[in-house]
Amino acid sequence: MTYTLVLLRHGESEWNAKNLFTGWVDVPLSEKGTEEAKRGGELLQEAGLTPDVLHTSLLRRAISTANLALDVADRHWIPVKRSWRLNERHYGALQGKDKKQVRDQYGEEQFMLWRRSYDVPPPEIELGSEYSQDADPRYAGEPIPRTEALKQVLDRFLPYWESAIVPDLQEGKTVLVAAHGNSLRALVKHLDGIDDETIAGLNIPTGIPLVYELDEETLKPTNPGGTYLDPEAAKDAIAAVASQGK
Amino acid sequence: MTYTLVLLRHGESEWNAKNLFTGWVDVPLSEKGTEEAKRGGELLQEAGLTPDVLHTSLLRRAISTANLALDVADRHWIPVKRSWRLNERHYGALQGKDKKQVRDQYGEEQFMLWRRSYDVPPPEIELGSEYSQDADPRYAGEPIPRTEALKQVLDRFLPYWESAIVPDLQEGKTVLVAAHGNSLRALVKHLDGIDDETIAGLNIPTGIPLVYELDEETLKPTNPGGTYLDPEAAKDAIAAVASQGK
Repeated sequence: MTYTLVLLRHGESEWNAKNLFTGWVDVPLSEKGTEEAKRGGELLQEAGLTPDVLHTSLLRRAISTANLALDVADRHWIPVKRSWRLNERHYGALQGKDKKQVRDQYGEEQFMLWRRSYDVPPPEIELGSEYSQDADPRYAGEPIPRTEALKQVLDRFLPYWESAIVPDLQEGKTVLVAAHGNSLRALVKHLDGIDDETIAGLNIPTGIPLVYELDEETLKPTNPGGTYLDPEAAKDAIAAVASQGK
Repeated sequence: MTYTLVLLRHGESEWNAKNLFTGWVDVPLSEKGTEEAKRGGELLQEAGLTPDVLHTSLLRRAISTANLALDVADRHWIPVKRSWRLNERHYGALQGKDKKQVRDQYGEEQFMLWRRSYDVPPPEIELGSEYSQDADPRYAGEPIPRTEALKQVLDRFLPYWESAIVPDLQEGKTVLVAAHGNSLRALVKHLDGIDDETIAGLNIPTGIPLVYELDEETLKPTNPGGTYLDPEAAKDAIAAVASQGK
């Protein structure tokens, strides 16, 4: 027997569209992102996939994506669990900055290191600054970061995976995780056992459900890499994500 | 000290607009209802009310209303709990029927008895019929009704109030309950100690948050009847609800 895990990266946000580093800044979906989310719901429905429980981050773009997709799929009524541990990578002092400007200012090498290295985080965000979350009530009392590389995302995601998502899977529930490019990359790295270098080249497209079947004993995928519900669209979108910031 | 409880009746649904008995049929908000929900969120924000936890029914019109209002109020990230025990009254065999046709067919007296009596439910809905929920997966294993008067709504709502909502209040959380005309009337009847006859004349307007401050010892309102966040609009809307089906 296998467990079914469905990953859904949020649709385009207003800042994705503007090419800004977003991270934990809580921007809404763009109009395109709203349509992507609804399409994600159609794909779930066409595939006959019926999530029994939803896990989301605390960020609007993931929450809205899940709400829109589940409404289309007639699963708007399922239980919801949220955690900051599913949030996007914290981009530190880069949050709110234009990607092209950062590249021009710091050079291609530093830019790519911050964007794609496994364990080199950007500089920490200044507490109290415009795009810092230190005073945000949703994180009150939580050990939230001031910057992260993918490694730190994995480190804070895994305890939630073990304590909240795995138990739902082990109850036989179809679990939907609506989250972000980097929190989902962290999960995929963990599931597929991808090494620290290879993960740099892995992109997850927005709005296209990615389905994993996990072995009930090992919790490892019986379909390594997962299965996109719209493989053609996923291929095109992966290419588009790879060209971001260029 | 008091606890803060905020009630929000969903905005107009497509079937409200068409004057059909809805009950547990899962119809979406109308465009007007969507606007009402957003306005509800604005009212929360203007009043500085920050819900810490949301309780909804399993019906789309309440879920969407809460999602829209909380997004506007920047509280989209709070924990969510859902239960069929917050659903609208089950209208039995009347579900899906035109209110005016039912009145014409059965007469004013029977019509008002079904609509407003405390304990006379409409005939039971036929299992397997178009507007029955007996095969709906969201209710699997639950002791759901086939028809209800307000009394039965109160009977199935109170266990949820006691076991799920009161504990949240007692933790000092501001609780938002996004639900329906009759499940909220049941709650208000309980809170304000309204008798079985008087409750017939009490209408709760859509989309306008109704705030109760509850004594921490007795859980009785220190502001009997609650406080609408937009009292003028509430007054107008109560008059409009009262004229429904006419």
